Amino acid sequence: MAFMAPSSSSRPLQFHEHASARRAAPALLRRPRSRWRRNQLVCSLEATKQAVQEERPAAVNGVAGRTDCYGVFCTTYDLRADEETKAWKKVVSVAVSGAAGMISNHLLFKLASGQVFGPDQPIALKLLGSSQRSFQKLEGVAMELEDSLYPLLREVSIGIDPYEVFQDVEWALLIGAKPQGPGMERADLLNINGQIFAQQGKALNAVASRNVKVLVVGNPCNTNALICLKNAPEIPSKNFHALTRLDENRAKCQLALKASVFYDKISNMTIWGNHSTTQVPDFVNARIDGKPARQVIRDTKWLHEEFTKTVQKRGGELIQKRGRSSAPSTAVSIVDAIRSLVNPTPEGDWFSSGVYTNGNPYGIAEDIVFSMPCRSKGDGDYELVTDVTIDDFLWERIKKSEAELLAEKRCVGHLIGEGEEELCEVTEDTMLPGEQ
Amino acid sequence: MAFMAPSSSSRPLQFHEHASARRAAPALLRRPRSRWRRNQLVCSLEATKQAVQEERPAAVNGVAGRTDCYGVFCTTYDLRADEETKAWKKVVSVAVSGAAGMISNHLLFKLASGQVFGPDQPIALKLLGSSQRSFQKLEGVAMELEDSLYPLLREVSIGIDPYEVFQDVEWALLIGAKPQGPGMERADLLNINGQIFAQQGKALNAVASRNVKVLVVGNPCNTNALICLKNAPEIPSKNFHALTRLDENRAKCQLALKASVFYDKISNMTIWGNHSTTQVPDFVNARIDGKPARQVIRDTKWLHEEFTKTVQKRGGELIQKRGRSSAPSTAVSIVDAIRSLVNPTPEGDWFSSGVYTNGNPYGIAEDIVFSMPCRSKGDGDYELVTDVTIDDFLWERIKKSEAELLAEKRCVGHLIGEGEEELCEVTEDTMLPGEQ
Repeated sequence: MAFMAPSSSSRPLQFHEHASARRAAPALLRRPRSRWRRNQLVCSLEATKQAVQEERPAAVNGVAGRTDCYGVFCTTYDLRADEETKAWKKVVSVAVSGAAGMISNHLLFKLASGQVFGPDQPIALKLLGSSQRSFQKLEGVAMELEDSLYPLLREVSIGIDPYEVFQDVEWALLIGAKPQGPGMERADLLNINGQIFAQQGKALNAVASRNVKVLVVGNPCNTNALICLKNAPEIPSKNFHALTRLDENRAKCQLALKASVFYDKISNMTIWGNHSTTQVPDFVNARIDGKPARQVIRDTKWLHEEFTKTVQKRGGELIQKRGRSSAPSTAVSIVDAIRSLVNPTPEGDWFSSGVYTNGNPYGIAEDIVFSMPCRSKGDGDYELVTDVTIDDFLWERIKKSEAELLAEKRCVGHLIGEGEEELCEVTEDTMLPGEQ
Repeated sequence: MAFMAPSSSSRPLQFHEHASARRAAPALLRRPRSRWRRNQLVCSLEATKQAVQEERPAAVNGVAGRTDCYGVFCTTYDLRADEETKAWKKVVSVAVSGAAGMISNHLLFKLASGQVFGPDQPIALKLLGSSQRSFQKLEGVAMELEDSLYPLLREVSIGIDPYEVFQDVEWALLIGAKPQGPGMERADLLNINGQIFAQQGKALNAVASRNVKVLVVGNPCNTNALICLKNAPEIPSKNFHALTRLDENRAKCQLALKASVFYDKISNMTIWGNHSTTQVPDFVNARIDGKPARQVIRDTKWLHEEFTKTVQKRGGELIQKRGRSSAPSTAVSIVDAIRSLVNPTPEGDWFSSGVYTNGNPYGIAEDIVFSMPCRSKGDGDYELVTDVTIDDFLWERIKKSEAELLAEKRCVGHLIGEGEEELCEVTEDTMLPGEQ
């Protein structure tokens, strides 16, 4: 049987040099190597805060480009040697931050199963934890992935330093963020999480694939995405997304419920603006079985006064019912968001994503991350849908969401090289109910 | 647009009679109907204990055959009317008990996504909770399924009475069971959970499809499966399975780790016996890249003394690492178990399942549920693999697991119509580490 290096370039050569030693003592493979123990101090939360002040934390320069493969995923394989796998694509490398959290607990298994990137797309998962404490949990996650025997999942590595974990990744799903604690203001959250996303942006800029696609889920996700892309000037700004797909999915479901049709009849649903309570779910352009939603739902009062509230309170209702947040459906919406970029958008339809405004046709402020209608050819890229009608009802609300995003941007000027923190005037709590 | 009744026969006619009313006031659909409130007392845990003494709890006779559709899943649809769905199969109806629990939290989304039954198999999920308290959680689960917009998921209904939820189901995935509390002996657990599975067996016997396939996950799953099938005399005993697939998956992973090969190289892995610490993971017949495992792994001491322990302690290790039980990989193994029955087994390979012993070729005691190597043509049925070599090493251990299952059976004589509880001599705690 031929042993060959995996096709991803992120596997450090060093491991292959020791391949025979590893085969002789595989039990060792399931422990993080000692250099990780050395690095953990550098990568603790305290250190992270310091690190974002620097271009790159000096102490990790010595181990650039290494990620720690885990257990059975340290074995070599040759996809071309087997009948079943020889027609597969080259391995795609996907980083996930917050990998020990509840959303990842669902998402990683979906990624590994093939339902996101397709049945002929082998995958390497690079799991990023936030702290020393999360390292052990990441090992547990990797063990469960081992036990799942997913044929497409060829590599799993774990780490807490984004400069290592993001090495050559083609997708970065940035889920991890500090939750909004009791009494914490949105301005505080913007600053705390902004620092994390500034560092991750720098790390992506330094080590990721030059065409990496970045999906920001951690809140406040639009402004976190802006911070991230501003700290990654060598990566196209167009490659950064803030997740508003869960809002889109919930909006579709609520229109379906109101119209008493199955949800597959709802199309052309836009979420405009910020992933916050200022977001604008667009019933004006949505279609139900091909017809304008307002032709099917005649209850204008409900559309104008209830629809948006119904969409937004969903997360809070779920917490109330289940006693936990909506991790499964959030993971599903991340899958949907990725699938919308790697599959052609159905003719005449579109999807929503928080994207960088740079020459948008709607007169929305430039240089922010704003959710808008998009289409894709299925190549990982997208184009804006440019001919959507914005009526007065929508416009008034879109301007509010735009104003909020501009205010958030002023709060994080120190993280995007555009001013000082003192200008922060965000006071209202616009976090969606049930989110953190 | 044509409105037609869904193809599953489990939808009560009553809802269709009121279809126009429901369309006029869809907000009402998201509340359980008042008759559920009336039924909940009958279906509480206390009542459940009484109910197993009777052929059927009298108070639910009046509402036979009803399940409570949820939200958008109460809408009618016509698969034949749409280009994308007209080639789909008839809806398959799948009941899941313990539907508000952690394993279901993963499993239901996998079932709904199409990865279990295939991309042209629409599905109806019937969620069974255990008590009034779980009802609200089930609503939360149904809401998350709504928000996921899975095209294949056409019906979701929720309930706490198995006689309603199991109506016409073609699959019953019995996950819910009381956990083993501190100080609780295995004999107590056998009795408490045995009563639940006796009642569910009776309910399946009364209302499920005559060819329903039943997969028991709740522990102690082998004996629970025996109790269930004994209480369902009108359903073929061959249709009942106890889940040992997670053990099989873990055993494959450990052999792969030891041999330093990727896990897709491991085949022909049998778990013999009980899903407990007496189980026998079979390295004698397992193959690595087509060769007998013992030709590849020369470390006989490890195979004889470490391998089984390594497989069995995995769940405990995971709890230690993650602080929670292995719900995601358990859900994956349930998916694997079902897929092994609805897809043809690859040539020369087999899978493990706890099945009813009735004319087995290995001299294992008849009339128990014992994990053995199986093959399927992909029609939902299976046949035993009859030519596996059992050497002295295996046989000695298989006999111990058999003895344990016979002892467990004597403990539940009162639940299978074969004697009294007093004969119970199960004292040792053989629960696998990390399980409940």
